[in-house]
Amino acid sequence: MTDFAIGVDLGGTNLRVAAVDSDGRVLERRQLPAEVRSGPTPVINALSDAVMELRERFAVGGAKLVGVGVGVPGIIFLSTGLLKKSPNLPGWEDIPVKEEIERRIGTKVYLENDANAAALGEAWAGAARNVRHLCLLTLGTGVGGGIIINGRILHGFAGMAAEVGHMTVEPQGALCGCGNHGCLEQYASATAIVRMAREAVAGERSEGLRALERENRLTSKRIYEAACGGDPMAKEIFVAMGRALGVGIATLINVLNPALVVLGGGVAAAWDAFAPAMFDELPRRCYIHREIPVRIERAQLGNDAGLVGAAYLAIQPG
Amino acid sequence: MTDFAIGVDLGGTNLRVAAVDSDGRVLERRQLPAEVRSGPTPVINALSDAVMELRERFAVGGAKLVGVGVGVPGIIFLSTGLLKKSPNLPGWEDIPVKEEIERRIGTKVYLENDANAAALGEAWAGAARNVRHLCLLTLGTGVGGGIIINGRILHGFAGMAAEVGHMTVEPQGALCGCGNHGCLEQYASATAIVRMAREAVAGERSEGLRALERENRLTSKRIYEAACGGDPMAKEIFVAMGRALGVGIATLINVLNPALVVLGGGVAAAWDAFAPAMFDELPRRCYIHREIPVRIERAQLGNDAGLVGAAYLAIQPG
Repeated sequence: MTDFAIGVDLGGTNLRVAAVDSDGRVLERRQLPAEVRSGPTPVINALSDAVMELRERFAVGGAKLVGVGVGVPGIIFLSTGLLKKSPNLPGWEDIPVKEEIERRIGTKVYLENDANAAALGEAWAGAARNVRHLCLLTLGTGVGGGIIINGRILHGFAGMAAEVGHMTVEPQGALCGCGNHGCLEQYASATAIVRMAREAVAGERSEGLRALERENRLTSKRIYEAACGGDPMAKEIFVAMGRALGVGIATLINVLNPALVVLGGGVAAAWDAFAPAMFDELPRRCYIHREIPVRIERAQLGNDAGLVGAAYLAIQPG
Repeated sequence: MTDFAIGVDLGGTNLRVAAVDSDGRVLERRQLPAEVRSGPTPVINALSDAVMELRERFAVGGAKLVGVGVGVPGIIFLSTGLLKKSPNLPGWEDIPVKEEIERRIGTKVYLENDANAAALGEAWAGAARNVRHLCLLTLGTGVGGGIIINGRILHGFAGMAAEVGHMTVEPQGALCGCGNHGCLEQYASATAIVRMAREAVAGERSEGLRALERENRLTSKRIYEAACGGDPMAKEIFVAMGRALGVGIATLINVLNPALVVLGGGVAAAWDAFAPAMFDELPRRCYIHREIPVRIERAQLGNDAGLVGAAYLAIQPG
């Protein structure tokens, strides 16, 4: 057995813990029960218990746990390991997550933003293996991101870098929860897909989508299936998504010139539907991409990316 | 005397060489005559002569020249010091600039993109002193930029990072020379100011600007003066510039989260005319900026930024 790390994904929907070996392979996962989600203390207790259980299980034959990485959505202070606040974790405010877990388990804990952790996971053991300059976009309920430059996460001045979902791609576009109009998130998230479909139904532009809505099945997955089935309006929605991604990724290439842009998150599964428009838009928007094309690829680790990247923080801290 | 470096600005319009001390102060400048601009060899000869002359002048009392930095516009290969090509230096293609100068002067030469060098200059001895995370935008004939992360220039995968002038700020906007529509450069450069004024004249929307055009004085400086004098159309043009900068800088903050954004270049002198619209637009476009405001300030070194930053490459290479 080799040494191993434990990754924790304190995501909005799932609470997951996994032991990860020194090559980035997941040895075993634990999904914590939803009941613990009544507040910070029961969650921290339950995940600490899971960490200790996995430590006991894999710390055999001289192998040892090198540390625990925790990916959290929200605003964190890296230097102190404090979770300032999180839109996905109601009731978590000014929680010293790192310290609280360390106190319970007696092993060093590393805290990181969950999208940054996912980028690190893909760079370590996924689509971006051996790539030193990359952007990850996670297309889920919203659009998040992580940027790696020279093998290291870009945090920026106040730890707020890589808010790629809130880049303006259409200045007079749809109003975003952040107060801006035309954020990428308003065109390339599950929420945006459903919003565009609702608008099409309200405008009586699609019988197929109206039928889905009547059956209460207007989800991004169903809309994708409708697009695959040839529904013209559903197809158009994914074209709009692809064009917005083309504009946004062009900007990322202009600013960062990464070697690779990785698209992850649940909505990346609709690749067939949005990618043609994205690949059509991108070179028009970005002369650098025409000169020296940048690879745009799907993520490979799925839901494990955040767990694996969190573990990497402990395996290779700094 | 302390040790010193020599910075060279191989810009499109000017060929300048300066001795710079170890605190970033310019000791003396040389402007090379325009006649040498007949091609790479005469230019490299003339600038090497100027370097040797300055070396002789300041290498006294034990002080020594630590190296020479050269800022060039265009595509360069950092590892080899080769200038691949440059839109501002016609006839320069695949020129081993570093090697050619080193051979003549016998001192180590560092090559860098000119906008990156300017960012480094402002970070060392200008508006961004002691700032580790910053973006410089140079508002000139076009819009260029340099990004510094953790005190180091961001080059990206192929050395093409910080093409901030070609970020899309208006997807259906004016056609740019790069082939895209609505690049920041189409709203925030001297060329753009003049274009917008010409469009206003053609549309018979401004008597004041028409008068300037008749006198063949439709320059960005004159248009700025017209705005200061209260000309409504001229004022509107700078509002459009400010709004575009607001959108573009919001994106830079979303992606990079710098501590400071510095605006340099000749058009930054029109600050009074464009800054109010920029500061109005920016917080709407960027919730991060509302939470943790990022400083937006004018550059301080003027035309010296590139010279000083180029010298810094030699003072503190790496």
